[in-house]
Amino acid sequence: MGFQMNSIVIIGAGNVATHISQALQKSGFKIIQIYSRTQAAAKTLANILNASYTSDIESICRTADLYLYALKDNALEFAIKKVSVPEALHVHTAGSVPISVFEHVTPRYGVLYPLQTFSKTKHTEFNNVPVLVEGNNPETTDVLMSIAQKISTNCYPIDSEQRAALHLAAVFCCNFVNSMYNVAEKIVSEAGLPFNILQPLIDETAEKIHHLLPAQAQTGPAVRYDTKIIEKHLEMLNGNPQLQHIYREISSLIFDMRTK
Amino acid sequence: MGFQMNSIVIIGAGNVATHISQALQKSGFKIIQIYSRTQAAAKTLANILNASYTSDIESICRTADLYLYALKDNALEFAIKKVSVPEALHVHTAGSVPISVFEHVTPRYGVLYPLQTFSKTKHTEFNNVPVLVEGNNPETTDVLMSIAQKISTNCYPIDSEQRAALHLAAVFCCNFVNSMYNVAEKIVSEAGLPFNILQPLIDETAEKIHHLLPAQAQTGPAVRYDTKIIEKHLEMLNGNPQLQHIYREISSLIFDMRTK
Repeated sequence: MGFQMNSIVIIGAGNVATHISQALQKSGFKIIQIYSRTQAAAKTLANILNASYTSDIESICRTADLYLYALKDNALEFAIKKVSVPEALHVHTAGSVPISVFEHVTPRYGVLYPLQTFSKTKHTEFNNVPVLVEGNNPETTDVLMSIAQKISTNCYPIDSEQRAALHLAAVFCCNFVNSMYNVAEKIVSEAGLPFNILQPLIDETAEKIHHLLPAQAQTGPAVRYDTKIIEKHLEMLNGNPQLQHIYREISSLIFDMRTK
Repeated sequence: MGFQMNSIVIIGAGNVATHISQALQKSGFKIIQIYSRTQAAAKTLANILNASYTSDIESICRTADLYLYALKDNALEFAIKKVSVPEALHVHTAGSVPISVFEHVTPRYGVLYPLQTFSKTKHTEFNNVPVLVEGNNPETTDVLMSIAQKISTNCYPIDSEQRAALHLAAVFCCNFVNSMYNVAEKIVSEAGLPFNILQPLIDETAEKIHHLLPAQAQTGPAVRYDTKIIEKHLEMLNGNPQLQHIYREISSLIFDMRTK
């Protein structure tokens, strides 16, 4: 590995930027600057990292070795074209954006996609986060793998299509799962009960699939086709046609996907 | 507590019966007999507990102090009427069946509802399982609370309506959550990736809500109203209209439930 990674500029100051930049700094990389369109966000993260910051894309430091883009997908293309430091390595962190977003803009580029849900206010151990790596050629992939392996023990090289599939899967098993938690929270709090009464069930549901495939772990009225309970639940959701509809659709899905 | 609980008959040999009967035995209760319509299931559980068993409802032992019904909801009413030992305490374990199912059949009755997902092939620590208790009068509730507290540190008296709400919430945060895991598993395995790559994300999604409310923990394209990613995901699901529909519906739900 002839490549020396002395300094990094972080483009973005959201959830992913906040977590990955700290993981990089902890592993010995030097974060020299944070850019965010929102000055307050740039400043907050820069203070954590003891780095400089800017909200002016024209003022981004042009001497870094690595530019790491952790932006909303629709802001990414514009920022990549704007920054344009051809000697440096350019890397984005987005699940759904193919590596080709860098094509014809800069010669060395790739993706470091951390497959995790991050919130600014919640600490996350980065060491175990799967980091999915893609470079524009084998040399760049090697460099990116060596960076990834400094922040996590759980790194894989994958292509853009696989990364898109992972991102779609993540929407189901993280974002959609959390929305189911949210519905459950509303139901128990309306019944005058504390949400944490559901915590052991939520934990065990996640724990179970360390040992069983989800198809084997499926329980509940839908997989048993227990229409009496299903009808009762739909009646309980009478005031909320949206939840009734979702209850029906997911119950059908469970029944259709059951292991026969 | 003047009530002595010397012997228990378990009516049922499914997931709940298997786990609660072992928890009771471990806490010093004597399980004398297992009934199941399926002889093999009755025998398997009876062997674990070193109890007798029967698949003939007429042969259920009539000298027990407690009859614990862990049956499918639609089999419960029939079994309760059939067993009919008026001196004993009769208890079911179902989330969705009101306590009134015992009314006019027997004088002392109630519910012990363990709020957990059980599979026969997976060990579950019972000690932390919330056990929701309801008795037909304060004395019975006291007796049931004292039984519940022997098998779990996490017991609450609640009424039938609250129990029904908990069961509905459990369908969302356990059964529906598991079906989202199942979809995710199918997506990653079609992309040639191992399911366990999603495990840290799944674990963190469950862990996060120990610290944040689900509404605060929500991330992903739907809550950001990132229509570009949503459209891309719907396109990727093109071969599966059922999943496309569910993706759309849950995304709308997330957007509608977001904290403003």
